[in-house]
Amino acid sequence: MKAKIVITPKKAVVDPQGKTVRNALEQMGHQGIKAVHVGKYLEIELDSADKESARRQLDEACHRFLSNPVIEDYKLEIE
Amino acid sequence: MKAKIVITPKKAVVDPQGKTVRNALEQMGHQGIKAVHVGKYLEIELDSADKESARRQLDEACHRFLSNPVIEDYKLEIE
Repeated sequence: MKAKIVITPKKAVVDPQGKTVRNALEQMGHQGIKAVHVGKYLEIELDSADKESARRQLDEACHRFLSNPVIEDYKLEIE
Repeated sequence: MKAKIVITPKKAVVDPQGKTVRNALEQMGHQGIKAVHVGKYLEIELDSADKESARRQLDEACHRFLSNPVIEDYKLEIE
């Protein structure tokens, strides 16, 4: 089983990395870019067969350890 | 229009960040985690209406600037 986690800065939080990428793209001639948000991506390979318990476990891990819930949102997908 | 880019280290490349996350999860009591891969996630908001030209532009940007094609793979989705 594979879990995919995307962690992004909350919309209200300043994202200097995203701004830098946006400016760099613009300077390289890419037009029409309104905004860039930079986040983290985690792919976790799991041994477990129980999708629901895996989701519960990873949800807790995301909240407590993998993301900072004050400034970041996360999205967890299990397949 | 929104583009989502996921950049991950190639399978053959050592991923110390992923190993560290794996060990940390294990020490926090999460069992059955085989492997963790850590990558980057970019969300790009575009002004353009032409999906195909946006894809071409961003594909080139991914290859030349946003990822390091020697050690990283990228996946580009436009919606």
